[in-house]
This record gives sequence, structure tokens and C-alpha cells, in this order.
Amino acid sequence: MEDIFAYIDRNKQSFIERLQWLCRQPSIAAQNVGIQETAGMVAKLMEEIGIRPQLYATDGAPVVYGAAGSGARTLLIYNHYDVQPPEPLELWESPPFAAEVRDGKLYARGSADNKGNLVARLCAVEAWFKTRGSLPLNVKFVVEGEEEVSSSHLHQFVRQHKDFIQSDGCIWEAGGKDIQENPGLYMGAKGILYVELESKGANRDLHSSQAVVVPNPAWKLVWALSTLKDRHEHILIDGFYDDVVEPTPVEMEYLRRIAASRDDDVRRRDLGIDQFLLGVTGLQLVKRNLYQPTCTICGLISGYTGQGSKTVLPSLARAKIDFRLVPNQRPDDILEKLRRHLSQQGFADIEVRSLGAEYPARTPVDSTLAKVVEETAKEIYGREPVVSPTMAATGPMWELTAQFGIPTVGTGSGYAHSNGHAPNENIRLDDWFQHMRHVALIFDRFAKAPENSKPQ
Amino acid sequence: MEDIFAYIDRNKQSFIERLQWLCRQPSIAAQNVGIQETAGMVAKLMEEIGIRPQLYATDGAPVVYGAAGSGARTLLIYNHYDVQPPEPLELWESPPFAAEVRDGKLYARGSADNKGNLVARLCAVEAWFKTRGSLPLNVKFVVEGEEEVSSSHLHQFVRQHKDFIQSDGCIWEAGGKDIQENPGLYMGAKGILYVELESKGANRDLHSSQAVVVPNPAWKLVWALSTLKDRHEHILIDGFYDDVVEPTPVEMEYLRRIAASRDDDVRRRDLGIDQFLLGVTGLQLVKRNLYQPTCTICGLISGYTGQGSKTVLPSLARAKIDFRLVPNQRPDDILEKLRRHLSQQGFADIEVRSLGAEYPARTPVDSTLAKVVEETAKEIYGREPVVSPTMAATGPMWELTAQFGIPTVGTGSGYAHSNGHAPNENIRLDDWFQHMRHVALIFDRFAKAPENSKPQ
Repeated sequence: MEDIFAYIDRNKQSFIERLQWLCRQPSIAAQNVGIQETAGMVAKLMEEIGIRPQLYATDGAPVVYGAAGSGARTLLIYNHYDVQPPEPLELWESPPFAAEVRDGKLYARGSADNKGNLVARLCAVEAWFKTRGSLPLNVKFVVEGEEEVSSSHLHQFVRQHKDFIQSDGCIWEAGGKDIQENPGLYMGAKGILYVELESKGANRDLHSSQAVVVPNPAWKLVWALSTLKDRHEHILIDGFYDDVVEPTPVEMEYLRRIAASRDDDVRRRDLGIDQFLLGVTGLQLVKRNLYQPTCTICGLISGYTGQGSKTVLPSLARAKIDFRLVPNQRPDDILEKLRRHLSQQGFADIEVRSLGAEYPARTPVDSTLAKVVEETAKEIYGREPVVSPTMAATGPMWELTAQFGIPTVGTGSGYAHSNGHAPNENIRLDDWFQHMRHVALIFDRFAKAPENSKPQ
Repeated sequence: MEDIFAYIDRNKQSFIERLQWLCRQPSIAAQNVGIQETAGMVAKLMEEIGIRPQLYATDGAPVVYGAAGSGARTLLIYNHYDVQPPEPLELWESPPFAAEVRDGKLYARGSADNKGNLVARLCAVEAWFKTRGSLPLNVKFVVEGEEEVSSSHLHQFVRQHKDFIQSDGCIWEAGGKDIQENPGLYMGAKGILYVELESKGANRDLHSSQAVVVPNPAWKLVWALSTLKDRHEHILIDGFYDDVVEPTPVEMEYLRRIAASRDDDVRRRDLGIDQFLLGVTGLQLVKRNLYQPTCTICGLISGYTGQGSKTVLPSLARAKIDFRLVPNQRPDDILEKLRRHLSQQGFADIEVRSLGAEYPARTPVDSTLAKVVEETAKEIYGREPVVSPTMAATGPMWELTAQFGIPTVGTGSGYAHSNGHAPNENIRLDDWFQHMRHVALIFDRFAKAPENSKPQ
């Protein structure tokens, strides 16, 4: 592989510029900003590298599909070109779409999640093409544009193009190093239900002196929210935990290994918190992180939020909430239970809007691909990777691969301070080139590896 | 008075332009915008009219003082030149500082609260000067610039210039017609304690998948708020109601008259609500409105509040709350009780910042001035005014007049859709000229009225 790695080393600067070019194009799914443009740019990149791109329209963002290579094995690669909203803008040290390089890091919304990994993987293909003239296996890229809004229309692409998904395994969009610099690999994902709650009062904002006799939607929202989860982190929606599956003995073995690899205090101090929720540590922390569902207030707004005081009775209050779901919870079932709960608690007049839903997913932990990714990670990173049966985050893994039983492994160029979904998102360029080499090496080894799980 | 009223009629257009000129200057106390400039403009207006202005510096906004006239009686006039923040800007039909006239109404932040009344009263003085060459009594204007932020520094002016306050009565800043077009007069005000609560989580915003193990400040704030007031509108802070005084039999008589003058359904339908809080109507509605203290969420913010979804674990959550206080509650005492409550409930780490405090006030209901204002209102408006022993709103009445026993009456040019503290604040110009005539008539009658209460 030295020839391929040398090609990567020789082309570092142009690869960085390629990533900057893509990061400088905003592609904010939640705000419908730059989506079509970015899909076109991804297709252009594929073309440059020698992958024939195809754009598939959906009722939402287009899916960019690209296949290359030949051979007995087929590797699916899943990425997304959309990004989270950049707000709050004032907390960024350089503009979110400037893609500035500072101290060996590239700062941009989307650098870690997920344009960095996408470009690294495309560059890995280029390195093979330019060095060997071909790929040792079939590679299929599926690059969607709505991952950050619960992949709302990916199912349309999957349903119409099942043949494009067929593969012996899938490299998932992301992964990275933990705070102790150990690379992590992931074989599952949580699901999600994202809702917006809206509470209404009078038909207009009023002088707050009227709050003594006119209903306040902010109070109503606070009271409603306080019925959803208690101070012991117990979610109070009737039946919420009904379908939660405990980890299997095999999974518990993985969790024990993760716990043994971690120093909780390093992460705790890095986040500036006194303790993790409920004071959990060690194995309990790992288990809670990966196997507990959540109910999270992601946003709250009502009335005056500027400087100083304004004595206003708001006419509207809104909360954004995400529920991260674990097998076998179903987002549609949780939405129904949430609505029933609010109604039973006397909050039937609070409007609940679903902004996205995804199923939780598990994929096989003992597949050929998992073994290959683990062994190659050891070689590239020079350390034992931390293998997780699932991740705490969400993606359309059920939709794209898990429902078909396709072995799936997440790995990527993130690190503990990548600030995904937060201001100053960034990647370390050294990590990025490591991921590029890692993917190039996976192509080689997966093509050669003996089969220990049925191809799909 | 026909000569004076005729002068007003002849000068309507120039008076409107005078008000537009003042309204076009932003003067947002909470954001420290345009305060010095506006104080200077008020002084300039006084000078033009023939009142010698004096600017008194405080540690906050300057107080503009102006005295004119001569005679046995002295009338104090209290107004303020600061305004509420104009946000949310997108809900205004014309820009908040454009002072546009449409359909006989002047739209501007500050038009109703309180530049309109200030300019009307100055114009009333001009009408006397231009018509009769003098005023029949001493008039003293006290115009401050921090009324909308709890008159934080007015006490400095009052302490140093007690002689400027000495008077036989005071016309308070505001008043207006209710939804049935009955003019209202007010002899007291609620107090206020305005606080900001801040809850902190990790040292930065995080991907919301981490919310399963990292504390969420938005949840903590919601739980803390839900301990402050229950769904029956009962404020749960220990000792909060200790010093609340019930209305006297005389006051109850006033409340009965107010209730008799009102059709609750007209107001309810206008606000677009199903019922008033706790379903109160009639006398109970009037009593609750004027004699109950409040705990109002005026603002809530945390995390992502833009379009669509963003899966973020916020690092910060804030609430703005006002407590409207009634005699004999004291803001400092309530602040201490609030802090103790949060600490006892396990929320000692939520920071409480006081953004303003004022005492509640009552002034005599049977004064000469009250009689004069009531009788002249009947003449000007052609209807029986609704006389209130107090208002639901707040002002520095204790500070400026009540602590000295000076009879005080609020009256002004507002109406039910003036939208004070809200978007599209406006006055109807006909109301405005009525108030101008009313004040001009008060000058005449108060100067002549027999004494029935001791001058101060």
C-alpha cells in the first residue's frame, strides 16, 4: 500500500483545497439552504475522480449515487452532504463557511459532520485509481442531503433503487477518536423522533401586567415539559420504555471492553461538568450512553430574549425536543404516546409537530467487514480501536442497511473536540489523512478477506 | 376654554409632527439606545414651548425637569421618554421608529407608552401660553428615561431634589380607554421585581446524542420554573403572599363599579382566549386584575430556535420573569424568598440576576385632584370615567409621589389596541387630542377647585 499512501502524501494540499471548496458551500437542510448546489458539487467531485455520478431526485434533497471498481466484493459507502444550522453565529471564531485552516485544523460547519469523511473517501478512491488504475472491489457511494433532518426522503431512493444498496458491507458516515485518542468503530445507531411543541396564548403579545388574568403560553409549555421527564431523568410518558431491549451478553462484553478503555474523569473535566447524569461512571456510563433512550430539550423560545428587561406577556412559546430511541422503540409509536400523554395531562391544546423520525438500528458485530475495519484501524492508528455495538447518535442505518441485514461499520476522522452540531466544528487534518489511508487500506483488505458472513 | 381648544384644533398638524419627531428617535432603556439624545430632544421641546428645562444626571438616564406657570396650586406631571425594546421586529406592519400615520392612528414604539402623553401635555401648556399668555397654576414636569427598566435611578433625582416634587397632586404618565371606550383613571400602581434566571450545563454546546449522560440546562430551568407556580396559578415560593393586603371596603366599592361598567366577553373575545385565568369573571376578574401579584415568564431561550430541527444539547438556558407586586410586598424581600426557594428546591446553581425592582403604591382616592380629573374627564369624553383605586401595571409611583402622600391620578390617550410593550404600538390621534384638551381643562379646574385634601 506504500504507493497509494505516498500518493496521498504528495497530494495533501490539493485534497485540503478540495475539502475547503465543498465546506465553503452552505448546505443547511433544516433551512433549505444550498442543497441543490451542493448535490451538484458532490457529483462534480465524483466525476473528477473517475466515479460516474447519478443524481436521484426525491421529494426532498437529491441523493448522489456513484459506483466504481469491479471485483467479487461490493462495499457500500454512506455519507451526507447536508450540515446542521450554523447558529449561534456569534460563538464561531471564524465564519462557519470560511473553512479556515488554523493550527493543523480545518474549521467549518460540516468539516467533521460529514463533508470531511466524504471527501477523504473520494480521495482514497482517487489514490487507488491514480496509482493502480483500478479498485480491487466494487465501491458504491450513497450521499444524501437530509441526514441532519432525519433523512426524511431517503426511503424513496432506497425503495426505488434496492439494487444500488446490495453489498457485502457498508462503511457508515462517521466515527472518530475519543478524548483518550482511541479510534472508535460503531455497528448500530439510535433512532430519533424530533418534535416541536407549540403553546399559544392570546392572539397577540401583551403588556405583562395582563398576565394576572390572561393565560401565558410560556407557563403552559413549562408545565407540559415538566410532565415529560422528572429530575431523576425518568421519562414519564406512559409506555415509553415498553420496547427497550437490554444489551445481550455479547454486547455487554463489548461494553465492558469500552469501559476498561476509558477514563471517565478525562471526559468529565473536558466538558466542565461535576458528574455525568445520575452520577453514573464506568460500565454504567457506557451502558447508559449506548442503550438508554432520551428526551432532550434542543431549543426553547418565548417572549423577549434580548438584552435587559422587557415586560411582555408572550402570545407564543415553542420547544424543540429530540427523543433518541433504542431497539425496539418505534418513532411513530412514541409520537402517539407523546400526544396521548399531553392530552391526558391536560395539554391537548399544545400542538405537536413531528420534524423527523428514524428507527434505531443494530447490524452484525461479527461480520467480515467489522473484522477488516478493526484490524486495519489497528495498523493505521497504531492502537486498539474501541469497538461499539452501537453509537449514541442517529442516522438512517435501519433504512439503508440494517433492514437488509447488511453489515455496517462507522469510522471516520472526528475527535473529541470536533464540536459536531455546535460552534467551531473542526477536524484535525492529520486525523483526516489517517482516515483517508484507513479507507484505502479497507478497500484492499476487504477485497481479499475470507468470507465469514453471507453476502447480501 | 374655547379659545384654548380652538388653538389645539388649529395646530393639530404641527402637534402630530412634533410627536413624530420624538417617536422617530429610538430611546430603548433596556438596550441603552438613544437615551441621552432623547433627553436632549425633550429639553428642546420644553424650551420651544416656553418651559425652562433642566437636565439632571443620574447614574443611569438623565431626568428632564421643567417648571412653568404661577399660582397657589402646584401640579406635578410625570412622564418618561424611554420605550420598551421593539422586538420582535418582523411583526410590525411599519418600522417601529417610522412613526407612520395610517387611518387616524400613529404607529410607533413609544407612541402610547409614553411619548404621546408627554407631548400632549406639553402641547396643552403651549395652548395656554399662546392663548392666555400664562398658566393658572404651577406645573412641574418630571420626565425620566428609565421607566421601562424599573426606574432604576429615579430615586437619586428624588433624594436630591425633593423640592421639585412638592405639589398638590400629580398627573401620572398613562391611562386610556378600555375596550368599551370608557376612559379610565388610576390612583395606584403595582410594584415589580424583574429577574433573569440562568442555568448552565457543559462548557459548550454539544451534539444532542450526548444528552443521555451530560446535564441539560434547559431541563434544569424547566424543572426549576415548574416549582415557582402551579397550574392553578398559585405561586409556590414560601411566604410570597405574606404581605398581600386585601382591598378595603371603600376600594371594593370602586371595584364593584368597575365590574358593573365592563362586559368581560368583549375583552375576552378581543384577546382571542377561551376564558380568563381560573375562569374568573365580573368582580372577581377586576379584583384579581388589580389586587393579585403575579409571576410571569416574559422570556425563555435555550439552544436552537430557528427553522426546522437542530439536534443540539444546549450549554445555557435563560428565563426572564417579572413579579408584579401589590401592597405591602417588597421587591427585596421577594428576591430573597425566590433565592431561598430555588436553593431549597435543589436549584442553588441557577443564577438569579435582578434586573429591576419597584415598590407597589397607593395614593388617596378622594383627593381634590382625583375629583377634578374625574369631572373634567366626564366633560371631555362625554361618558362616566371608570375610576380605579390602582392599576395592574407598574411605575415609580411609590418613589415619586406615594411615599410623600401626594395625590396621583393616571389618565392618558391609550386605548384597548394600543399594543403597549408589543408590536404595532399605536395611538388614535382623536384620543390624543382629547387627552390634550383634558389636560388643558385640568389646569383650569385644579387651579380653581376648593381644597379638600391637605397640600403636600
